[in-house]
Amino acid sequence: MGDFVNKRQFTIDWAYCDPAGIVFNPRFFEFFDTATWHLFEAALGVKPQDIASTFDILGIPLVDARANFMVPAKFGDVVEMHSFIGEFRRSSFEIRHQIFVDGKLAVDGSETRVWAMIDPQTGKLKSKPVPEEVVAKFKPAD
Amino acid sequence: MGDFVNKRQFTIDWAYCDPAGIVFNPRFFEFFDTATWHLFEAALGVKPQDIASTFDILGIPLVDARANFMVPAKFGDVVEMHSFIGEFRRSSFEIRHQIFVDGKLAVDGSETRVWAMIDPQTGKLKSKPVPEEVVAKFKPAD
Amino acid sequence: MGDFVNKRQFTIDWAYCDPAGIVFNPRFFEFFDTATWHLFEAALGVKPQDIASTFDILGIPLVDARANFMVPAKFGDVVEMHSFIGEFRRSSFEIRHQIFVDGKLAVDGSETRVWAMIDPQTGKLKSKPVPEEVVAKFKPAD
Amino acid sequence: MGDFVNKRQFTIDWAYCDPAGIVFNPRFFEFFDTATWHLFEAALGVKPQDIASTFDILGIPLVDARANFMVPAKFGDVVEMHSFIGEFRRSSFEIRHQIFVDGKLAVDGSETRVWAMIDPQTGKLKSKPVPEEVVAKFKPAD
Repeated sequence: MGDFVNKRQFTIDWAYCDPAGIVFNPRFFEFFDTATWHLFEAALGVKPQDIASTFDILGIPLVDARANFMVPAKFGDVVEMHSFIGEFRRSSFEIRHQIFVDGKLAVDGSETRVWAMIDPQTGKLKSKPVPEEVVAKFKPAD
Repeated sequence: MGDFVNKRQFTIDWAYCDPAGIVFNPRFFEFFDTATWHLFEAALGVKPQDIASTFDILGIPLVDARANFMVPAKFGDVVEMHSFIGEFRRSSFEIRHQIFVDGKLAVDGSETRVWAMIDPQTGKLKSKPVPEEVVAKFKPAD
Repeated sequence: MGDFVNKRQFTIDWAYCDPAGIVFNPRFFEFFDTATWHLFEAALGVKPQDIASTFDILGIPLVDARANFMVPAKFGDVVEMHSFIGEFRRSSFEIRHQIFVDGKLAVDGSETRVWAMIDPQTGKLKSKPVPEEVVAKFKPAD
Repeated sequence: MGDFVNKRQFTIDWAYCDPAGIVFNPRFFEFFDTATWHLFEAALGVKPQDIASTFDILGIPLVDARANFMVPAKFGDVVEMHSFIGEFRRSSFEIRHQIFVDGKLAVDGSETRVWAMIDPQTGKLKSKPVPEEVVAKFKPAD
């Protein structure tokens, strides 16, 4: 059995496009952010606004984002987006985001985020291990 | 003598920030885009809206963007941004973007763009070699 | 029978929110723009990217936008949005946009747009009467 | 002597523009928000991030925003923006925002905001009178 994939189909709105009539690249990183929240909600069964309190963390801050743009997405295009965990490391994880236009991979991106708390001693942000129960939810049993 | 660096100092506005009170990551990619236009204007002496017609290209479409987020930039922070060419390849080039908060490197990003025209035969987008005169403008003589 | 109303339910994403944890006001005007395109698609049966060519116009440029903000929409809220024509005038029209949070009217907004063409003599933007067939589509017969 | 006017000149970046090559209207409301913070900083001599704590308020939430769009602002245009208080009422105030393109009034907008605190008894947002010292700072003596 495969891992958890959050799929979403949506239309490229006027609001997303630049003077070339295609999606302005920062919007893709916004799509990534939103998709990560939705992926976590779908896998964990916890609403985005409740994730921090449920798992006693500050949040899942981003430390790296990147994308390859292969095919432009134009005003009116219907795109499909697949988001899934690329890898869980000790206290960080990679989320992959793939956007398809007409069935072709158009944008291939990823985010690296940290499972983060406030260190009670220093008052500073500090990563902590991703709980096994969280990791398990993204890897459904066979 | 060093290469061309476009520097810009600006304040982190409320508009840029998310519920954590720090810059929402897609904004950084917007800053990158804007800085690239300003870097080209500064180096080439051509206004952004005139670059396509001046060099007989369609534009400089983005094929890759990435960033490492090391220190958050908060509402009210004054940041300094440095943008410069990382590398000119045959028909593409990398632009580096570094954002400093309190003198510390906070965001380290890059864009890869293509020098692109419309192929008169196929009507499709096609990369073409970056003109030597353009490359030269970014590498001031000693 | 009532007039055409385009309804949409959606969740307030992290991407929409400001440091106060509520939707940053310009986003509402983005929601308005998107909803207008969707309303026209639903009423006319023409995709947004085909409206200009189908009706031989340049587009429906905005000349006025306004909104009253009564209740904040917070990260994670599920909102309902109703968009409908407020009034057709000779060559302009008003679109009303109402957003409800927990069943309460939270944002009450409107846009005024013009049915616009390029004047073949002057080359300038010029309003023209909204075709009766278009008006009729928004007012279903009893 | 006139009242306090915050003036800012800036260029219309690619990032602000839509497929028509002109500023996408929600951006103007973002310009308004930013200009209000800058106006307050200029008049009060208090940094945006310190306004709430300095005046013991929660903030200055928006209750109404509106704009008239008369002339489009295009990619590359240099615009001038004037922001000033339109009127102080008891516990709210109007900020006017005017954007000029080539010396012509292109966008005429306004925001209404409330001087707001958290009611210690109900825990809810509540408006309170704008302090006279604040009002006075926007109306320089003759």
